[in-house]
Amino acid sequence: RINADRLWDSLMEMAKIGPGVAGGNNRQTLTDADSEGRKLFQKWCEDAGMTMGVDTMGNMFMTRPGTDPDALPVYVGSHLDTQPTGGKYDGVLGVLGGLEVVRTMNDLGIKTKHPIVVTNWTNEEGTRFAPAMLASGVFAGIHSLDEAYAKEDHEGLKFGDELKRIGWVGDEEVGARKDKMHAMFELHIEQGPILETEGKDIGVVTHGQGLSWTQVTITGKDSHTGSTPMPMRKNAGLGMARILELVDEIAWSHKPHAVGAAGHIDVYPNSRNVIPGKVVFTIDFRSPDINVIAAMEEDMKKGAKKICDMMGLEVEFEKVGGFDPVTFDENCVTAVRNAAERLGYTHQNIISGAGHDACWINKVAPTAMIMCPCVDGLSHNEAEEISKDWAKAGTDVLFHAVVETAEI
Amino acid sequence: RINADRLWDSLMEMAKIGPGVAGGNNRQTLTDADSEGRKLFQKWCEDAGMTMGVDTMGNMFMTRPGTDPDALPVYVGSHLDTQPTGGKYDGVLGVLGGLEVVRTMNDLGIKTKHPIVVTNWTNEEGTRFAPAMLASGVFAGIHSLDEAYAKEDHEGLKFGDELKRIGWVGDEEVGARKDKMHAMFELHIEQGPILETEGKDIGVVTHGQGLSWTQVTITGKDSHTGSTPMPMRKNAGLGMARILELVDEIAWSHKPHAVGAAGHIDVYPNSRNVIPGKVVFTIDFRSPDINVIAAMEEDMKKGAKKICDMMGLEVEFEKVGGFDPVTFDENCVTAVRNAAERLGYTHQNIISGAGHDACWINKVAPTAMIMCPCVDGLSHNEAEEISKDWAKAGTDVLFHAVVETAEI
Ligand SMILES: NC(=O)NCCC(=O)O
Ligand SMILES: NC(=O)NCCC(=O)O
Repeated sequence: RINADRLWDSLMEMAKIGPGVAGGNNRQTLTDADSEGRKLFQKWCEDAGMTMGVDTMGNMFMTRPGTDPDALPVYVGSHLDTQPTGGKYDGVLGVLGGLEVVRTMNDLGIKTKHPIVVTNWTNEEGTRFAPAMLASGVFAGIHSLDEAYAKEDHEGLKFGDELKRIGWVGDEEVGARKDKMHAMFELHIEQGPILETEGKDIGVVTHGQGLSWTQVTITGKDSHTGSTPMPMRKNAGLGMARILELVDEIAWSHKPHAVGAAGHIDVYPNSRNVIPGKVVFTIDFRSPDINVIAAMEEDMKKGAKKICDMMGLEVEFEKVGGFDPVTFDENCVTAVRNAAERLGYTHQNIISGAGHDACWINKVAPTAMIMCPCVDGLSHNEAEEISKDWAKAGTDVLFHAVVETAEI
Repeated sequence: RINADRLWDSLMEMAKIGPGVAGGNNRQTLTDADSEGRKLFQKWCEDAGMTMGVDTMGNMFMTRPGTDPDALPVYVGSHLDTQPTGGKYDGVLGVLGGLEVVRTMNDLGIKTKHPIVVTNWTNEEGTRFAPAMLASGVFAGIHSLDEAYAKEDHEGLKFGDELKRIGWVGDEEVGARKDKMHAMFELHIEQGPILETEGKDIGVVTHGQGLSWTQVTITGKDSHTGSTPMPMRKNAGLGMARILELVDEIAWSHKPHAVGAAGHIDVYPNSRNVIPGKVVFTIDFRSPDINVIAAMEEDMKKGAKKICDMMGLEVEFEKVGGFDPVTFDENCVTAVRNAAERLGYTHQNIISGAGHDACWINKVAPTAMIMCPCVDGLSHNEAEEISKDWAKAGTDVLFHAVVETAEI
């Protein structure tokens, strides 16, 4: 069993870096706080005897050697970056849980045949630079390095420049390891309400639902809110409002699993007495069924065009992120289930509602995920909370699954 | 008749300060560009023999003396500040038109009994610091100086601090002049389509419609767009969308004159994969009928509460600006109409759709406005355009109305 107090102390120590405004964190990717968090993680890993590799996307690979020089490493990890108003556990638990696995191995004098690599994937959240899971995506060959480097944040700063600025461009070719992975395990909080509601300690993640992000740009005409008669208006803000309603209707029409919403909305020129001439917003549709995602997207585009045509507005769509539904590796999933069973934790199969680095890595290596509950299913919120017992159960299962897979 | 080329050159010269991105201007109030524009205006006025007074709100009063030491001044002016994506004429025409009136008097050797004071009112637009017409409002006793100084922009910078920073806090007590005004005239572009459609040179502004700005804050719950099931969402963005639709319905239901929209919308935390936990936006309702404004506001609040209750959202309303419909001074209005008639310009009575400094000054002194057409009724847009002939006609009428009122 792992050392829950040590794990918890590390979680709380990391949460001091990039504090939020309401008890959570704002340690967005490629900020100074991100760099500081990385350094702390590096120090902890080195203190635990690991050595660091960093690739050109800033992905950090902390290696504990194995006993067999020919055995491929077992990867374990997640991400240290957070939402602008994020929690202390989303991603962080998976990284520091990986560290705790190695610390526990050290305590117990466990040597494994396969090396263990604890990984911090860059820019999982995708808030500053869409899409989410950008660096694990480049690693897995989904996006090119050039594409990733060219991504811009709200202020027009480029991913490549910011990675350089914070000093975390490594010398390893990104993805060079991808054909040399024995397996990968990611521990993550559920970010939804199912495990807590069902009273289960552990979610054995069999699948991940797919996602599509469509950025919609509506162009109307800036004009005066007072002196422009109603019939002459081309109100891009009102067009956006009607499309948001449509997105909601579409998501509800694919019960029980599909979801849809817009989290990002920018209105231009955003002045109280100017009818919005432009609105840019991103629609997030998800479902475990790839056909449902496609249908929702198509319905949205058709409906949005109709709405905008009727209002004299122009509308454009740009795909800014997406991944297909995922089926995790059967052997890895079984290792997780067996570990939970062996340790006496209650568990159930679960579909991940969120995207995770594991979803991309699953394309290049046998991969599975372990979930632990979070209070009220709340995530992407500073009030995100888990109990120490939940963190312990998840990390115990991670420890057993990793040790079993890495072979003593 | 005024010198249209000189007026036009000055308009184009001023437009070089704080250029926009699409041919218009971004010379928002209390920015460095605002200060630079003020300095150019000051220089032009001093070159024309005027002397400057500045009050504690930064309002600029450029005086051409009269022949009778006891005669109260005739004021003429508007504002030099612009929208973030504003035009070259909104406000500027009224200030530089006033300057052109004095320059023409100088050319023709005209001396008036009453002094002429060409005025630049601070922060008419109200984009950075709500409400609009803030400084003429303090001058007229509508708001206190302390209230105005405490207003904050989007970045939390205070009006008082920013006025100091750009170096335009004057030593005159604001409003000290308000009981010593003979009259005030404001020339402005229509910012609507009526004059152009009717083929008229001049709008004789008899009334101004009233306005109400209500800032709405909806609080839901930030949560994950992927893993939060539809029934558990408290989507503040969707609540906002439904209220925008309601605002539109309400405005249409009070045909033909009422209008309503939201120009300002801020979504928090504005991340693609976070259901908005908070949205702050401002609703702009206007009508020439004060009862209609009150009814629209009431209907909106009732409807918005119902929408938010049904969605499990909190909603709060804050009045952030407003003025009642205005009836301009009969004698001043007649002076404008007579001038248009005398000069042979086509004209018609018109109600101002926008708010203007003249609306506040009308409370403390006999006031009227002159409007000239603008292309496609477009304003609060960088593409805002007028013809030199329209500018000439408006300024000719201003010249005659001012000279008649100031008495030779
Ligand atoms: N786990 C998580 O929140 N990842 C961000 C990508 C997503 O939006 O699902
Ligand atoms: N003229 C003008 O655009 N003034 C700003 C105040 C308003 O919104 O009416």
